[in-house]
Formats: sequence, structure tokens, C-alpha cells
Amino acid sequence: MSQEAQFVFNTLSFLIWGGLVMWMAAGFTMLESGSVRTKNASVICLKNVGLYSIAGMAFYLIGYNLMYVDVSGWIGSFKLFYGPSEAEIALLGGDESATEAVLENGYSVMSDWFFQMVFVATAASIVSGTLAERINLWAFFIFTLVLTGFIYPVVGAWTWGLGWLSEVGFHDFAGSTIVHSTGGWAALAGAIVLGARLGKFSKDGTARPTPPSSVPVVTLGVFILWFGWLGFNGGSVLALGSASAATSMSVVLVNTNLAAAGGVIAAIIFVRPILGRFDLVAVLNGAIGGLVAITAAPDMVNHYWAILVGAVGAIVCTAGYRLLWSFRVDDVVGAVPAHLFAGIWGTLAVCITHNDTNLGVQLLGILTVGVFVFSISYVLWKVLDMTIGARVSKGVEQLGQDAAELGIEAYPEFVLMPEPYEDEDE
Amino acid sequence: MSQEAQFVFNTLSFLIWGGLVMWMAAGFTMLESGSVRTKNASVICLKNVGLYSIAGMAFYLIGYNLMYVDVSGWIGSFKLFYGPSEAEIALLGGDESATEAVLENGYSVMSDWFFQMVFVATAASIVSGTLAERINLWAFFIFTLVLTGFIYPVVGAWTWGLGWLSEVGFHDFAGSTIVHSTGGWAALAGAIVLGARLGKFSKDGTARPTPPSSVPVVTLGVFILWFGWLGFNGGSVLALGSASAATSMSVVLVNTNLAAAGGVIAAIIFVRPILGRFDLVAVLNGAIGGLVAITAAPDMVNHYWAILVGAVGAIVCTAGYRLLWSFRVDDVVGAVPAHLFAGIWGTLAVCITHNDTNLGVQLLGILTVGVFVFSISYVLWKVLDMTIGARVSKGVEQLGQDAAELGIEAYPEFVLMPEPYEDEDE
Amino acid sequence: MSQEAQFVFNTLSFLIWGGLVMWMAAGFTMLESGSVRTKNASVICLKNVGLYSIAGMAFYLIGYNLMYVDVSGWIGSFKLFYGPSEAEIALLGGDESATEAVLENGYSVMSDWFFQMVFVATAASIVSGTLAERINLWAFFIFTLVLTGFIYPVVGAWTWGLGWLSEVGFHDFAGSTIVHSTGGWAALAGAIVLGARLGKFSKDGTARPTPPSSVPVVTLGVFILWFGWLGFNGGSVLALGSASAATSMSVVLVNTNLAAAGGVIAAIIFVRPILGRFDLVAVLNGAIGGLVAITAAPDMVNHYWAILVGAVGAIVCTAGYRLLWSFRVDDVVGAVPAHLFAGIWGTLAVCITHNDTNLGVQLLGILTVGVFVFSISYVLWKVLDMTIGARVSKGVEQLGQDAAELGIEAYPEFVLMPEPYEDEDE
Repeated sequence: MSQEAQFVFNTLSFLIWGGLVMWMAAGFTMLESGSVRTKNASVICLKNVGLYSIAGMAFYLIGYNLMYVDVSGWIGSFKLFYGPSEAEIALLGGDESATEAVLENGYSVMSDWFFQMVFVATAASIVSGTLAERINLWAFFIFTLVLTGFIYPVVGAWTWGLGWLSEVGFHDFAGSTIVHSTGGWAALAGAIVLGARLGKFSKDGTARPTPPSSVPVVTLGVFILWFGWLGFNGGSVLALGSASAATSMSVVLVNTNLAAAGGVIAAIIFVRPILGRFDLVAVLNGAIGGLVAITAAPDMVNHYWAILVGAVGAIVCTAGYRLLWSFRVDDVVGAVPAHLFAGIWGTLAVCITHNDTNLGVQLLGILTVGVFVFSISYVLWKVLDMTIGARVSKGVEQLGQDAAELGIEAYPEFVLMPEPYEDEDE
Repeated sequence: MSQEAQFVFNTLSFLIWGGLVMWMAAGFTMLESGSVRTKNASVICLKNVGLYSIAGMAFYLIGYNLMYVDVSGWIGSFKLFYGPSEAEIALLGGDESATEAVLENGYSVMSDWFFQMVFVATAASIVSGTLAERINLWAFFIFTLVLTGFIYPVVGAWTWGLGWLSEVGFHDFAGSTIVHSTGGWAALAGAIVLGARLGKFSKDGTARPTPPSSVPVVTLGVFILWFGWLGFNGGSVLALGSASAATSMSVVLVNTNLAAAGGVIAAIIFVRPILGRFDLVAVLNGAIGGLVAITAAPDMVNHYWAILVGAVGAIVCTAGYRLLWSFRVDDVVGAVPAHLFAGIWGTLAVCITHNDTNLGVQLLGILTVGVFVFSISYVLWKVLDMTIGARVSKGVEQLGQDAAELGIEAYPEFVLMPEPYEDEDE
Repeated sequence: MSQEAQFVFNTLSFLIWGGLVMWMAAGFTMLESGSVRTKNASVICLKNVGLYSIAGMAFYLIGYNLMYVDVSGWIGSFKLFYGPSEAEIALLGGDESATEAVLENGYSVMSDWFFQMVFVATAASIVSGTLAERINLWAFFIFTLVLTGFIYPVVGAWTWGLGWLSEVGFHDFAGSTIVHSTGGWAALAGAIVLGARLGKFSKDGTARPTPPSSVPVVTLGVFILWFGWLGFNGGSVLALGSASAATSMSVVLVNTNLAAAGGVIAAIIFVRPILGRFDLVAVLNGAIGGLVAITAAPDMVNHYWAILVGAVGAIVCTAGYRLLWSFRVDDVVGAVPAHLFAGIWGTLAVCITHNDTNLGVQLLGILTVGVFVFSISYVLWKVLDMTIGARVSKGVEQLGQDAAELGIEAYPEFVLMPEPYEDEDE
């Protein structure tokens, strides 16, 4: 194949699959908007449209440079803005002699930027769900700016930017740790600082269920994520312009899908005896847990391993949800179990499915990323809480953020139930 | 074009268009969830996430082998599991000398698997809609396992697996019969065994309308299906790596879209004089009917034929819906008319648009597939009914499957109308 | 790269990105259906499924020929139907000797048709939203037929068909004026002829807010449009089969995304001080305004310009919304500000970002398109109003079009608020 055809294939792969990952922003929005109570369903929409925009902007201003440009081992360049290479600008200006220099890069510079950018947004989306129904909007947007402009890029510099964790052999194909756990740690820190929603936990510590405003909307969100994940993992092959890359991409898509299916089936089979009934939330989170878990290494050629990795991811996710409750940590959509706990499992499971990996290194990566992201996030949430306030007032929380902060309701014409669980014990 | 570029194009085609067909699972879910009453909208979500997972698993375990590997005329291989070719595994392991053997196959093995797998799931989705609001969840999942692991693969072996129906010249480009009628026959058998929903038919045989829980969600589902169908038919060219294949794919997409548009316009024009008003359900089903009908042969170069095939498909679909009612067959979303009746029409219409086809052979294909799928399905539904029970109890049906089986409601905060048509005559 | 690989790349680009633009039809449907009151949410679904179908049909019957075939400067050919080239038909029939002639065209004929067709539908979708909740369905469908079969193709012939506006150097990359303003002018003419909804404006001229039936559905619509816009602008590179084209496409996708993000952030920042709170509708329309504005020239290599163009587009959009109110023009979803006003801004902004453009020519294009589309549309709306009636009766409007015209409700099982603003002053 000609070098130019390779270039076009590689670039196209970033653009198509990156487009699908962009679409995951809609998936998170639907999942979260359907999961919260109706009184907070509109704010979720604003938060998600906003975070996707802020993430893209921050990554353009500084994030990509910190992550990929002149990475010294710990961090990349602090210069602002990013753009096409000089050769590309010359070629676009009509200078055909620049073609060779353009082709040497293997893909169009901005196609890679686009693909990496949508990944940043994914990490930020995870935080949004956990902290729903009580977080101050400005605090959330400021946190998102730091997460996507600094925290995530630093983690990325260590790994995909070929920094120190990459050098010691840490393996994380498409980001079980780098994307999903990073989002999960940031969310967990926020959940601890913010505390639980009013009335979520009764005095004896039992968690009260909060009804999702719309189950079909949640399900739509999960399907969007599943669909988008084909791009998330498939595009992470980072090439398409050879038989080897195309074959690898096929294997990755199959494993990604089988892991999600394995997660769903595990949730159907294992949760039923425990609860005595089917649990749709466990099944939907099972799909997400399976997808997160396979993300660290979706390239095994024996596909039954993908099923196993996904199935265990789903169980980890459901068990983790209960575990958080026992610590009275209130994660509205279960994003911490799905993205952090299943992400840890997936990053460790690499050692089962891939011989050339090292458990110690995987643990080192999990721990250092965890310590770094959690501690910075915790401090930042604390600072936000002490300054502008990380949490809305009790009055706003009871009334709902939609009416209080946006002046609208998500479903203004529908008659809603009076809320039964206001303010009983907190 | 180099052989390697062809390989990448063909593989990419399977992956992209296969991804779009995966997305159709969300379309069926939305269409069905919006079509049922609110009390059963969550169970639909569980059924569809579950069936997509089970279908993928069954096709990995055994289905693909039965359909495509060593097909003897009637059935393929009974060996378990499927995976990349040895040459591909070698290439992925770094052995460049395997490239030639990999390229010889024309596309990556697992990209084809992925594309075929999402087709199986489509067949299973059809069953879900027809039997909504009354089917036992376990019975449905067990039936799905057999349908996707055995029934559909056998039909596929006869045809796309190059078995006996293929040898006699049966023509079904992307599965009007093989996918859609197969799903439709299985659904019809289930509808007969299960019987109608409580109160669906009054004593004099008139059908009572059951309100859809959300018309916008139904419409979203139809748009998802329309979008996904571009992949369903486009990907069924099974190649992209030549001028001929790319041209063929363009023609297929245009015909697919025009057939759906023809179905919509036919439903707008023809239904209005009959009912005295517009009928949105007829229009939406008209789109589906048009899409199903064109699927048997979307490759004609005179595109007006596609409009005609689609328009008649829509009329067949609406007329069929009434026909089922006259037999007191209760098909909740109209999947049997849309997928089976319009599928039969499309499979016959091939003889109008394609000279090299034979009406007798097309009829033979329709009939043998019908007899095979319907009879096995009927027996299986009967066995399920006599063992675990194919239908939920009267109490569960009245309360709604969401509350009874899942312990949740689809829209728990919204105040709903009391249901007017409980238990009047059955 | 071989000529054949180029051909396949170019064709694939039209098909994939065209598929994404088709998906925008679902985006408009959701945006509009969620924006109107529940009593009109189903009719929106019918209108959008119908308009997409009619647009495709009209473009097949005559539109494409008027726009692209034998364009004399003002208009193309009046012959009916369109189809593959003779060489393509020969190749599809197995005549390999036709390959050379096929390749000479650079892409498959019908892939271009498909891509252009979905653009027509976009223009028609814009009209639907503005005139919601009061327009006669038949009047809307007839107008759509003329818009997509004649008005839009003539504007297209002047520009992309290489007619007179193209010859004087008018620059509109993907249709800020050609698609979005055309739709906007047609919508504005309709809004003036139809007048405002009952009770929208009180006697002193203040506009009463009409609650959206579902905020999450509106948000879903915006995300679908954002996703689809990657195809709208990316595909408008009109080629993929070279390093230059692939690089250009990457740049276009990045700018498209950044402009939308810029629009969102501008709406968050600038609207808050004015209203004293966040305004989700302004934010969502800000994304659309940003996208429309960048569409005229999304190919600058300094991406900060895209942010600026998008941000101003969002502000223009929000300010324009107020402006329309001051003229008592009732645009239900804000489509005129988002598509027309932001489209004008984007078409002018080309002169800031692209040196080889001319402000006078851009103004000439904006004005001539405006005069042509607005005047024909105005006359047509008037004729429709005097014949079949462009607007539904007062009784139908109060009852809601869903119940009155379709005999269904969008959410029949949900208990709704009694409507507070019937018929007070008009």
C-alpha cells in the first residue's frame, strides 16, 4: 500500500472513531439525566454540554501540549495552543512539495488531536454523574477545567505521552486507568468532599433508593456508550493503514462487544439470586463495567477471555456499588464502581491475558495515578468548597437545581409525585 | 489498488457498517419501549440489552460455525468458539511473513464475524417487540438463545453459508427473508402460543388501542433503525475495496433511503383517506416496512423501483396489521407485518427488479424458511409454556412487568392515568 | 495512491459522512419535539419523518438535476430522475472495461447524490421548528416539496452548481448561507404569514414562555446535531483520497467542534450576567449558532478563529431571539436566529478568516439568496394560506395538533398540567 493510502486510512480512523467517542458525550448525558430525579434532569444537560465544551477548549489551549509535546518523563510542554504541522499548513496552502513531510507523520496531526480530545471529555463526564443533584455548577465547571487542562494531561503524559510509566512498561491499551480511573478518582474525591444528598442515607446507614426520572433514557444512554465504545477502543489501535492494524481493530471491536455482553449476562445471572429479582440498573451498569474492564487490553485473540474480563467487571461494579453505600458515599449513577473499580480490575486483568505484562508495574500505575488524581482532586474540591462552595444550598437541593439555578423544569407540563424523602434525618 | 488496501477497505466496511447495525439494537429498544404502556417500558429495556448480549454470545459459542464453517448444504460445523485465522494470529504476533496468507482472505476474519453477529441480534430484536407486555423474561431469554444459536444460523447456512437454497439460486441480498422474516416467523409463533394481552380484544373481536408510552421515543427508535439500515444494507455489499464495490454500495444506500421514503409517503397518502386522518404509527411502520422490503435487493440502478418496492412494503405492513387483528393475534409493535409480511413482499419483488431471479425459487425460499422457523419456534414456545411458563401471571400482567418483575417503574416520579381497560372480558 | 483507492476513499467519505447528516434528521426531530408543548409533540414527529422523505424524493425527481446538471448560470436541467452514470451501470453489470471511465469521475455518482440529498433535508428541517404548534400539515408538506424540489436547488445551482454566484467568488464552504440561511429565510417568511401562536404575546408585546415538553429530549437533539455536523462539514471537503484532503478534513472537524464549544461557553458566560442565571436554552442554541456560523468556512488552520466565530455566532443567536420577539415573530425553537442570523454572521466572518474573499461578494450572496428565498417563500405561504389554509383552526391549536389531527397524544398515560395560557388576548 502506498504511504499516502496509509496516511489517509490512519487519519480516517481517528476521525470516524473519534466522532463516535464524541457521541459518547450524549450517552453520558442521557444516562445521567435519566438517572437523576426529574427536578435535576435539566442541570445535568447543561453540565454535560458545558463539560464537553470546556474539555475541548482546555485541551486545545494547553492540555494536548502538556500530554504529548516534548514530554520529559513527567510532563510535556506548557506552551499554549495546538495546530497543524508546518508541512501540513504548506500542503493545505497548495505547496505539493510538502506532501512527503506530511506523510512522514503517518496521520494528520489534527485528526490525532481530535481523537485525544474526545477522550478527555470522557474522563470529565464520569465526574458529572457521581456528583449530580447537589454540586454547584461553577465549582463543577472550574473543576472540569483543571481536570481536562492539567490533571488528565499529566496522567496522559506519564503513559501515552511516553513518560515514566510508559517506560517501566505499564500497559493500558485505551484507558481503563488513564481515562476511566482518572475520572473515577476525581469523582470519588468530589463525592467525599460534597457528602451525600439530603436524605440519601437514613440514620442507621441504609441507603434510600432515589428513583430515576426515566428508565428508557438511561437505557438509551447505555446503548450510546456501548456504540461509542467501539470507537473508543477501535480507534485506540491508532492505525488502520495495514493488514495488521485492520486485523487488530477487528479483534478489538469483537472483544469490546463480547466484554459488554459478558457483563450484561453476568449481571443477569449473578444478581438475580441475591436480590430475588432482575435488576435493570445492575444489568446496565454491568455493560458499562464490562466495557471499562476490557478497555485496558481489548486485543487478545482468544475471545473468551474478553467475556471473562467483562463478566468480572460487572460483578466488581455491582459489589462496589454496595461497598460505597457502606461508607455512605453517594454516587448518583454508580460511576465510581463502573469506571474506577472496574477500571482497576481491567488494568490488573491485563496480567492474565497478556504474558508480556507485569503485575507489579500494573499496580504501580494504578496506585500512582490514584494517589496523584485523588489527592489533587481532593484538595481542589476542598478549595472550591471553602471559596465559592462546592455544594448548593439545602434550599436549592430540596427545590431542585433545575428550578433554582436554571429557572426551568425538565418536564414542566407533567404532573409529578410529591417527593417523599425530604430532609428526614440530615 | 494494492491487495492490502483492498483488505483494509473491506475490513473497515464491515466494522463501520457493523457498528451502525449494532446501533439498531438501541433503535429497537426505543421503538418498543416507547410503544408499550409505561408499566412495561423498563422490562423492554432489560429484554433488549439482554437479547443483544445473548445473541452475541450464542453466535460466538456456536452460531457462526453452524452458519458459515464447513457448510454441508444444510448445516455447518458444530465445533465451539470462533476466532481469528492462524495467519492473522501470527501476523498480530509480529510475524510479517503471514501477511500474504492474511491478505488472501480479502478481509479480516473477525470483522466479518462482527458484521454477521449484529445481524443475528436484529432477528432476535424483532421477537421482543411482538411479545411485549406479557412474556416471561426467562422464557424470552431461552428462546433468544435457541434462535440466535441455532434457528437463525441454520437458515443462514442454507443461504449466505452457501447451502442448498443458495445453490438453487435464492436471492436475498441483505436478509428480507433470512433476517427479517426469520425474526417475524419466530415472533408470530410466539404471539399465537402466548395469546393476546388481557383486554386487547373485546368479545366482539375489535381490538382496543393500547397507548404508546412515548411517541417521541418511538420516533427516535425509527430514526435509529433508518440510520442503522444504511449499514445493514450498505455493509451487505460485503466489500469496499474496488470501484465496483464502492459504486454498488452507493447505489444500495440510495435505494435503501428511497425505499424508506417511499414507504413513508405511501403511508401518508394511502392511509389518510381510509382513516380520515394522518396516522403516525402507520407512517413510522411504513418506513420500517419500506426498509424491510428493499432489503432483499437494494442494488437496482433504476431507483424508482426502490420507491415502488418501499411504498408497497408500507401498504403491506399497514394492511397486515389489520389482518393480524382479525385473527386476534396481538403484535404489540406491529413487528410481524413490518418484518415478516413486508419481508415476504420484498423477497418476491426481487423478481420484478432483477431479471436473473426466479419466482419459484423465491417462493421456495420463503416457504421453507417459514416452515422451518415457524414450526421449531412454535414447538419451543409450547415447551417453554408447559415448563417454566411462557407468559407471566394475570396479576403480573395487570400490575405491569416493571413493578412485578424488576421492582422499578420506568417513570417513577410521574403521575399516570389509571388504566381504563383492565380485565373486562378475558 | 492508485486512482481506484482515491475513488473508494472519496466515495466512502460521501457515504459515511452523508449517513451522519441523515442522522441529523433525528436531531431536528428530537430538538423540536422536546421544545414544543406535549400536545403538539407527535405532529412534530410526523412532520420530520415526512419532510425527510419528501426532500429525498423531490431531490431524486428533479432537485439534483436543477442544482448540478448543465447549470447555465442560474439553473440546471429540468429533466426528471437521476441515476448512476452509464459507465457505472456497465461496471455494475460486470463490464470491467468501464472501470477507467468510472474512475475518471473521482467518486461514485450516487454517493455524491446521497450526500447532497441529506443537505436538502437539513434545510427543510429548519422550517419545521419555527412554524411548530400551528401550521397546517398539508401546507407544510407542500411547502417542503417546493423548497426541496425548487427553491433550494436554485440557490444551490448559483453556488455549488458553479452558477453565477460561484463565478463572482462567493465563498460558502458547507452552507451557512446555502443551506442554513435558505432554511431560515423560508422559516421567517412562514412565521410572518402564519403569525404567532395563540397567547404567545400579550397585549403589551411581552412574550410568554412556552414550556418545552422535555428538556432531555431537546438536549439529545442538540447532541445529535453536533455529532451529525462533523459529517456535514467534514464531508463537505468533498474528497478524502489524498493527504491534502484527509488533512483538510481533520482541520475541518476540529474547527467545527471548537466553534460549537465556543458557542456553548460564550452562552454560559455572556448570558448569565444578563439573566442572573444560567439559561440552558441559550446554551443549547449557542452550540447550534456556533455550528452554523463556522459552516461557511471551517477550514482555517489557526483554530482560535473557529472559537471566535462560534462564540459570536452564539451571541448573535441569543440576541436575535430577543429581536424576533420585539417584532412579535414567533419562532418556536429559535431556528431563525440559529440558522439565519448566525448563518449571515458566519458568511461574513469568512472575510476575517480567509484573505481570498471579498466582503462585497459575500454580502451580495447573502442578499440575493435572501431576496430570492424570502420572496418566493412569502408568496407561496400566502398562496397556501389563501387556498388550503396555512394555519390550523383556533380550536385545533387550543386542543393541540396531536389530538386534533393525529388522534393520538405523545404521552397518553401521563397526567398533564392544565394549560394556563389559553386565549387570553388574541
